[in-house]
Amino acid sequence: MSAPARGFAQSEFAARTARAQALMGEAGFDALLFTTEPEVRYFTGYLTRFWESPTRPWFLILPRMGKPVAVIPGIGAELMGRTWIDDIRTWRAPDLKDDGVSLLAETLRELSGDKARIGVPMGHETHLRMPLGDFFRLQRMLPDVLFEDATAIVRTQQQVKSEAEIAKIAHACQVASGVFEAMDAIARSGKALDAVFRDFQAALLGGGADWVPYVAGGAGPGGYGDVISPACGDPLKAGDVLMLDTGAVFDGYFCDFDRNYAIAHADDAARRGYEVLYAATDAGFAAAKPGATAADVWRAMQDVISTAGDAGEGGRLGHGLGMRLTEWPSLIEDDDTVLEPGMVLTLEPGLEIAPGCMQVHEENIVVRENGAQWLTRRATAELPVIG
Amino acid sequence: MSAPARGFAQSEFAARTARAQALMGEAGFDALLFTTEPEVRYFTGYLTRFWESPTRPWFLILPRMGKPVAVIPGIGAELMGRTWIDDIRTWRAPDLKDDGVSLLAETLRELSGDKARIGVPMGHETHLRMPLGDFFRLQRMLPDVLFEDATAIVRTQQQVKSEAEIAKIAHACQVASGVFEAMDAIARSGKALDAVFRDFQAALLGGGADWVPYVAGGAGPGGYGDVISPACGDPLKAGDVLMLDTGAVFDGYFCDFDRNYAIAHADDAARRGYEVLYAATDAGFAAAKPGATAADVWRAMQDVISTAGDAGEGGRLGHGLGMRLTEWPSLIEDDDTVLEPGMVLTLEPGLEIAPGCMQVHEENIVVRENGAQWLTRRATAELPVIG
Repeated sequence: MSAPARGFAQSEFAARTARAQALMGEAGFDALLFTTEPEVRYFTGYLTRFWESPTRPWFLILPRMGKPVAVIPGIGAELMGRTWIDDIRTWRAPDLKDDGVSLLAETLRELSGDKARIGVPMGHETHLRMPLGDFFRLQRMLPDVLFEDATAIVRTQQQVKSEAEIAKIAHACQVASGVFEAMDAIARSGKALDAVFRDFQAALLGGGADWVPYVAGGAGPGGYGDVISPACGDPLKAGDVLMLDTGAVFDGYFCDFDRNYAIAHADDAARRGYEVLYAATDAGFAAAKPGATAADVWRAMQDVISTAGDAGEGGRLGHGLGMRLTEWPSLIEDDDTVLEPGMVLTLEPGLEIAPGCMQVHEENIVVRENGAQWLTRRATAELPVIG
Repeated sequence: MSAPARGFAQSEFAARTARAQALMGEAGFDALLFTTEPEVRYFTGYLTRFWESPTRPWFLILPRMGKPVAVIPGIGAELMGRTWIDDIRTWRAPDLKDDGVSLLAETLRELSGDKARIGVPMGHETHLRMPLGDFFRLQRMLPDVLFEDATAIVRTQQQVKSEAEIAKIAHACQVASGVFEAMDAIARSGKALDAVFRDFQAALLGGGADWVPYVAGGAGPGGYGDVISPACGDPLKAGDVLMLDTGAVFDGYFCDFDRNYAIAHADDAARRGYEVLYAATDAGFAAAKPGATAADVWRAMQDVISTAGDAGEGGRLGHGLGMRLTEWPSLIEDDDTVLEPGMVLTLEPGLEIAPGCMQVHEENIVVRENGAQWLTRRATAELPVIG
């Protein structure tokens, strides 16, 4: 399995910028202001794990014409200088008195004037990654500027992936698929769950993941209590169903899927739960065609699940993914997003096997002209027994 | 090396809550509202990597009396139910029409009344992890409530660590120290830097880290161009100085330090740079006593660095750490935070060896009554040569 090339052609960043500028024009924005990692990276290629540090804000401005303009801490100038961005303005951060706010205000004024309408993502699944007090200060420094919600632009554009993006997600999926298929080397009866988590992450790295931002899972007789817990030190026991879920990253793009394993043996209820979820995933796959809505895919899976029980507290049966572990759209009853070729989704049905005991199943797909295509190597049709 | 116990005694959460409530009383707040992972975890013990998903907002309210109240997506109810929190209110998220905002507004009104003054972290190193549009909606739903900056409370409290917190940070430091000391098994001339990064992360996991949220580094003749880059596929070459920096986590607490290695051989300039930074770290260690300021520690290191050159674009020569990779205070010229016993800091001097070529050096310490104590196992006094 050879990894795709790292990075993107400059033409891809130019195309992303042009597309966003067209959407800005339609929406009447004079500029877009971004503060979060995926947005900055999407338009620049700026890839670093330094965002883990919450100390410094980072700003990217997309004017109506021309390349994006970066207003960033000096510590990032070298790395940003290696991207396609030409206009990089820096300050020495952290600055306790003025952490880039004046420089940002000056730059916005220069690019868009005193009376601009500036789009900022303020909607569902977004947040503003700068001190809220500094945002209020920015508003006071630009009293005739309107800051309005631009979530629709970001969402419309980013939920449809390019082939180069799909190749990176597919590679992350293949890396994790390989590790999942060799789980009998990692998990067995008597091994502590936290040791399983550690070895699982190490195997993902060994298999070619750049890093492993997300691991969760659970284990218990026939199922597990929730799907977001960190590992405890309890040993796996015969009859447990072990679930591991990972968001492993290749070149900044996530996979997000899970696998289930029976430890030593499985009872009938556990096998039946697994089969229901496998069938629900098949139904979601069949429904995920261009023109169908996110809700249609939800409904296809929900119809299978409801023959056997309840989907559990999560409610959502899948979602977009890409530069983030989870993205728009949501596979829920009232998300009427129309699927388009290039959308990458998780299918993630869940089932409550018994009170407080659930199973989940997850695969990643890309929507193509003729229907869905697997990015993950499909789980086995029957609950695998290991260790 | 035995790991400290996971979690905290319930008495620690009760003490944190009582202390915050005392600070709230002094500041005249009727409640505090938190939206970010470290704040929610600090008062509840709620530990999950699910925050990697940006989709759902999470809210914690600290009323003037009594335990914190959680207003969270239903998917987190099971895990939050295992903490000391009693009052857990959930909604089925994501809800495209009302993603917890009405429930949050109702709960704030119930706890603090219609005319409350509610503290929200809005200052340096903070952000609001909920859609900005939903925050504005919350303000409109509670028109007589004042939302004001409560950063000082969070900062004052969290920058002084308990012994149980220090033990977790110390353990993360010891795990990473062990991996750094065995780097000759990971890095050698001819090996690609991205493979080094991967094996380094796997070794941290094998050594006992729960996960590795942060890895950065660089390599080049005598030094490197920046300190926040991801790895490229270029092979290490004889004469390179390799730097690896990690924030590895044990039970939710970070280490944050780096190590330098000469590959095969080192020239005099590289050795001299290393020695200057080693001496600067010693000077910072000696200065880091209760009653000194963050600026005093900066000055002690800067005085050593300035005999040899410039500290480079970063400016900051260290910072707090704990539940975050980087925290208040900053070791910069104008941070007058007075050091207290229990503060955990990085000492992180940098030196520009030549234009575009730098070295950095980093250790972690805790401030004690009588002065600083190393949490990391000190780097060797001379630049080590490996591979």
